Amino acid sequence: MDVSEYTPTRDQYAYTFGGVPSVMRVRPGTALRLWSEDAFNGVLRSVDDLSSAKVDLRYVNPQTGPFYVENAQPGDTLVLHLVAVEPARDWGASAAIPFFGGMTSTDRVVTLQDPLPDTTWIYELDRDRGTVGFAARHSDHRIELPIEPMLGTVGVAPAGGEARSSLVPDRFGGNMDTPQMRAGSTIFLGVNVEGAMFSIGDGHYRQGDGEACGTAVEGAMTTTLIVELIKGSAPGWPRIEDDTHWMTVGSSRPMEDSWRIANAELVHWVSQLHGLHAMDAYQLCSQIAEVPVANVVDANYSVVVKAAKALLPAADAFGGMHADLRARARSLMTT
Amino acid sequence: MDVSEYTPTRDQYAYTFGGVPSVMRVRPGTALRLWSEDAFNGVLRSVDDLSSAKVDLRYVNPQTGPFYVENAQPGDTLVLHLVAVEPARDWGASAAIPFFGGMTSTDRVVTLQDPLPDTTWIYELDRDRGTVGFAARHSDHRIELPIEPMLGTVGVAPAGGEARSSLVPDRFGGNMDTPQMRAGSTIFLGVNVEGAMFSIGDGHYRQGDGEACGTAVEGAMTTTLIVELIKGSAPGWPRIEDDTHWMTVGSSRPMEDSWRIANAELVHWVSQLHGLHAMDAYQLCSQIAEVPVANVVDANYSVVVKAAKALLPAADAFGGMHADLRARARSLMTT
Amino acid sequence: MDVSEYTPTRDQYAYTFGGVPSVMRVRPGTALRLWSEDAFNGVLRSVDDLSSAKVDLRYVNPQTGPFYVENAQPGDTLVLHLVAVEPARDWGASAAIPFFGGMTSTDRVVTLQDPLPDTTWIYELDRDRGTVGFAARHSDHRIELPIEPMLGTVGVAPAGGEARSSLVPDRFGGNMDTPQMRAGSTIFLGVNVEGAMFSIGDGHYRQGDGEACGTAVEGAMTTTLIVELIKGSAPGWPRIEDDTHWMTVGSSRPMEDSWRIANAELVHWVSQLHGLHAMDAYQLCSQIAEVPVANVVDANYSVVVKAAKALLPAADAFGGMHADLRARARSLMTT
Amino acid sequence: MDVSEYTPTRDQYAYTFGGVPSVMRVRPGTALRLWSEDAFNGVLRSVDDLSSAKVDLRYVNPQTGPFYVENAQPGDTLVLHLVAVEPARDWGASAAIPFFGGMTSTDRVVTLQDPLPDTTWIYELDRDRGTVGFAARHSDHRIELPIEPMLGTVGVAPAGGEARSSLVPDRFGGNMDTPQMRAGSTIFLGVNVEGAMFSIGDGHYRQGDGEACGTAVEGAMTTTLIVELIKGSAPGWPRIEDDTHWMTVGSSRPMEDSWRIANAELVHWVSQLHGLHAMDAYQLCSQIAEVPVANVVDANYSVVVKAAKALLPAADAFGGMHADLRARARSLMTT
Repeated sequence: MDVSEYTPTRDQYAYTFGGVPSVMRVRPGTALRLWSEDAFNGVLRSVDDLSSAKVDLRYVNPQTGPFYVENAQPGDTLVLHLVAVEPARDWGASAAIPFFGGMTSTDRVVTLQDPLPDTTWIYELDRDRGTVGFAARHSDHRIELPIEPMLGTVGVAPAGGEARSSLVPDRFGGNMDTPQMRAGSTIFLGVNVEGAMFSIGDGHYRQGDGEACGTAVEGAMTTTLIVELIKGSAPGWPRIEDDTHWMTVGSSRPMEDSWRIANAELVHWVSQLHGLHAMDAYQLCSQIAEVPVANVVDANYSVVVKAAKALLPAADAFGGMHADLRARARSLMTT
Repeated sequence: MDVSEYTPTRDQYAYTFGGVPSVMRVRPGTALRLWSEDAFNGVLRSVDDLSSAKVDLRYVNPQTGPFYVENAQPGDTLVLHLVAVEPARDWGASAAIPFFGGMTSTDRVVTLQDPLPDTTWIYELDRDRGTVGFAARHSDHRIELPIEPMLGTVGVAPAGGEARSSLVPDRFGGNMDTPQMRAGSTIFLGVNVEGAMFSIGDGHYRQGDGEACGTAVEGAMTTTLIVELIKGSAPGWPRIEDDTHWMTVGSSRPMEDSWRIANAELVHWVSQLHGLHAMDAYQLCSQIAEVPVANVVDANYSVVVKAAKALLPAADAFGGMHADLRARARSLMTT
Repeated sequence: MDVSEYTPTRDQYAYTFGGVPSVMRVRPGTALRLWSEDAFNGVLRSVDDLSSAKVDLRYVNPQTGPFYVENAQPGDTLVLHLVAVEPARDWGASAAIPFFGGMTSTDRVVTLQDPLPDTTWIYELDRDRGTVGFAARHSDHRIELPIEPMLGTVGVAPAGGEARSSLVPDRFGGNMDTPQMRAGSTIFLGVNVEGAMFSIGDGHYRQGDGEACGTAVEGAMTTTLIVELIKGSAPGWPRIEDDTHWMTVGSSRPMEDSWRIANAELVHWVSQLHGLHAMDAYQLCSQIAEVPVANVVDANYSVVVKAAKALLPAADAFGGMHADLRARARSLMTT
Repeated sequence: MDVSEYTPTRDQYAYTFGGVPSVMRVRPGTALRLWSEDAFNGVLRSVDDLSSAKVDLRYVNPQTGPFYVENAQPGDTLVLHLVAVEPARDWGASAAIPFFGGMTSTDRVVTLQDPLPDTTWIYELDRDRGTVGFAARHSDHRIELPIEPMLGTVGVAPAGGEARSSLVPDRFGGNMDTPQMRAGSTIFLGVNVEGAMFSIGDGHYRQGDGEACGTAVEGAMTTTLIVELIKGSAPGWPRIEDDTHWMTVGSSRPMEDSWRIANAELVHWVSQLHGLHAMDAYQLCSQIAEVPVANVVDANYSVVVKAAKALLPAADAFGGMHADLRARARSLMTT
């Protein structure tokens, strides 16, 4: 299995899902190795690089893509299996951007208060130890944290002729910011336009649930993934499968609406996988769901609802695609 | 260490936090073994017992208590360490009560639609296997699920002369419905009135995050706990500590407000435990927090925000009270 | 028709709905003239009286009452007709209390930002002109505004043994803060406990919709009202009728839930008044409703939904009680 | 002053703001007379035309435009003065579309309940009386309601390369559904792209606040408007001025966020118009604002915040543009 590599030039980044021409055509079954810039567009390189001075909000969260998937039609299911998600630099950056984040008023949760102090943190990567180093800005504290590389943003072009900012998660995926988008995960996205037009970006070397301050340990990333296509069967909202869980993602506001979306999707999925009546699936999911909040900072908040496979009878989703891709990924990594 | 046992008679249940006289005075340091009725008040005993016919909404979620803790004054911290939480019956019940739960319109999220079908599920407990059995109502599916006993409701009398329904979680604790309230956990609650006046109830043999259908596997419970008191230091919102995590709980609406409350509490707690500036604690928590949703069904939604001790330097909260209580609990269990 | 006067002493104020013994028994049909203190408990008397120094949050929004209405039983409808609402002082006060109000983070919408500057405004009343004077604190602007006296808070004891802070509006009425609670309005409240136990307070010499900064032009008030009782027919949420409109009030969070509550109540009321199917009433109300926001600052937000009588066929609600009370009020004012 | 007329053919409708080429170039100062189709795209013509059968959700809320305004650059202010908004047909339609509207679960407020019954109402227009006729579907009720023609949707292309569905209101205007967008109103919109690219549509013969069932009395409309341009001064969110009020519109979720946006915009506007410190403007607006809810049904909810000119000192916004346009409109109507 060959791997196609692609590293965008600065003028090739995409800042929306939809509304942008494709950078490459790929056949289902293709493996890609993609370089992505960090969400700050690489402008925060030291603690003296403040967001207010350096970050141009028109050019944040640059995406690598979009990729045109051959034969993908509206109603189909795009499948992306993350084989490897690897830091492409030796440092990551995080920042409390004025009026951005979960513990400050924002342009959506407006108050008349002053912003929090504009602050940047730089995390040095220790590849041997597999850690990034938190260094406090107001004291000498240093804490090593294990890296857990993931992609904050994965999505396709939305329906209805829309083009949406790469900062906004919704039905089409986008900036969901869930740690579940990591190596070993398979993401299922409904195709809305011919070619699906998927992009990825927003690499995080690690992130807490909720991404409270608005930014994770943001870093350039090298992502290896396999692209697949299932004809038809488009899920209404993004679904994720890994070796242990079935997962759905809802992104809306207020946060209970995100949860309602994801929970209903999981209920319907479990109902379908196991031949259960919706009321029985509702009851069963009520007793087994895990619900980690993904982000409370974007224009839409994201909530993940998960069901552990270990608690359920064996089942295959999307024709056993995840297991098949895991096998292909292993073969890819050993060649 | 002696253990005082208390089993309420039916007319001794409390249905509010605040506004009810105490059933017993306890000294700090006391161990209690408390029997609590299930949230349905024991009226759903077979799948033919429907909520609409059997459940009297004036008498749901009965609490065992309140207990007057000697020497507890407003501003103090009540500490409850859960030593054991054990099913007191061989079956639990769950139900989709009309217009109650997370995937239906309710008296707070009002629509003009018809209710979902009134349905009751009975879960048989297998003590040897440590499981409860889900039996679908619309097919023959049966799935064994491991028990994870917990208390849905733990709280003290609220401030300001309020008396609040046992269905509502808020600053005073109450119906938070988080699986974190299980054996081995220590709960810290700010005292609002003389004697603290705490109650417990709403045992769950297991529950998914969010308690989507509105009810867990509800069951009568025998809870063994140790009561302690710290003078002063009252937290603004409930805090939980176990061997692996520092946790805070926020309960409000919309759900992002619950998260904001809990996240700010954790930021301030981590700041205090480690001598970090609030902005540094904000940054650090952003990269390490775990955020499981607790309930999306009560009058206030509850969100838990957790920090793993393994990721942080060693620290003692509330004078090392949790470790001390763990030791006392071990000694209690071996006598 | 006699009028009973009542002016509470400072230790007779109530700070909750429920949980407080009655100060007086009244028969249905009684007229009362009640003095009420302002929501600051009278402590802000000059612009130099800052909230942070003077306001004790345990003693805000003092209520006059509760009054025990003879023969009132749960399920009945308490009727309060506001005959006159008259400023009892020659000045009112307003303030931007730190972390309180709609354009700041609060204890429910938590951020890590600093509070807005603690500021007090004093409004002088000109009885001849019927105005209060806004005097800017940071410049010499002065603007005369017409007085529009109203009561921010009217309610009964809640159900289920609850006692609720006088700051919180809910099903039982309470701190709804709608300008609709003014002379000429009739308020219908469901009775939850024997005697109804109603209180009033929180006089506003005027208020904008939303009460954005958290406080209106707060002032002591003399309120003349007639108390009536309808056996049965308890509405689920507060209803208001004046000469021109049918109105319902919903109080919850988020604000769309307040609206849903009030809108459903109006749909059902119009349906019942005019013998319309609920779907037809839904359609009709969609085309005629007026929806002024009442408050976005309390623990629950309040939204009023109104239907203009002029757009609807003639109808009598609650047996024509409003028209009857208007007549009695006229006779009262001319004696 | 000449008036350019434009009636789109069916294939010229736009369904997004942004992402669509202009249909006409116009110079500032131009008067346009525009025909717009109803939000159902004209497919509901009798009560037997049910939404589920006739409405194709990919082709709803068709917009007339976009129009390229010469010389308009990002940061400028597009001004649209509504001279006349006149029903272009003799009937309007309204519908309770399954899973759409404010009193039902939707694709954003998801439950597992069945939808409300799919129902269509047809309103006959009586031009002489200036009324539309409500005819109940489940009984013989008929009620004449005065027409109050307005545009539900007015907007420009959004920023950041986005294209947004014509169903979604946001910073760029769009589907705000406020009755304030009627003849005599002047709308100010920040320009985001060269040419501004504005569109209009979604004529309502009348609408209640909130547009509860999701649809107003929808009708084809002939709109006469004057286009103007102010260099610079782009407001952050839509502003409306008429002869009596200054108004701002916020559109987000939850509804309190919409209110916060609009209220902050009004505070800043009043501050600027009258040279008041922001805290004084906050106080003043708190006592005078009117806050009618506009829509609680779209992907974003809209709230209008208004200040009555009669309560404030005289002031000119945007160089007195509204008064100037009123004069030009009068001259236009008399020629």
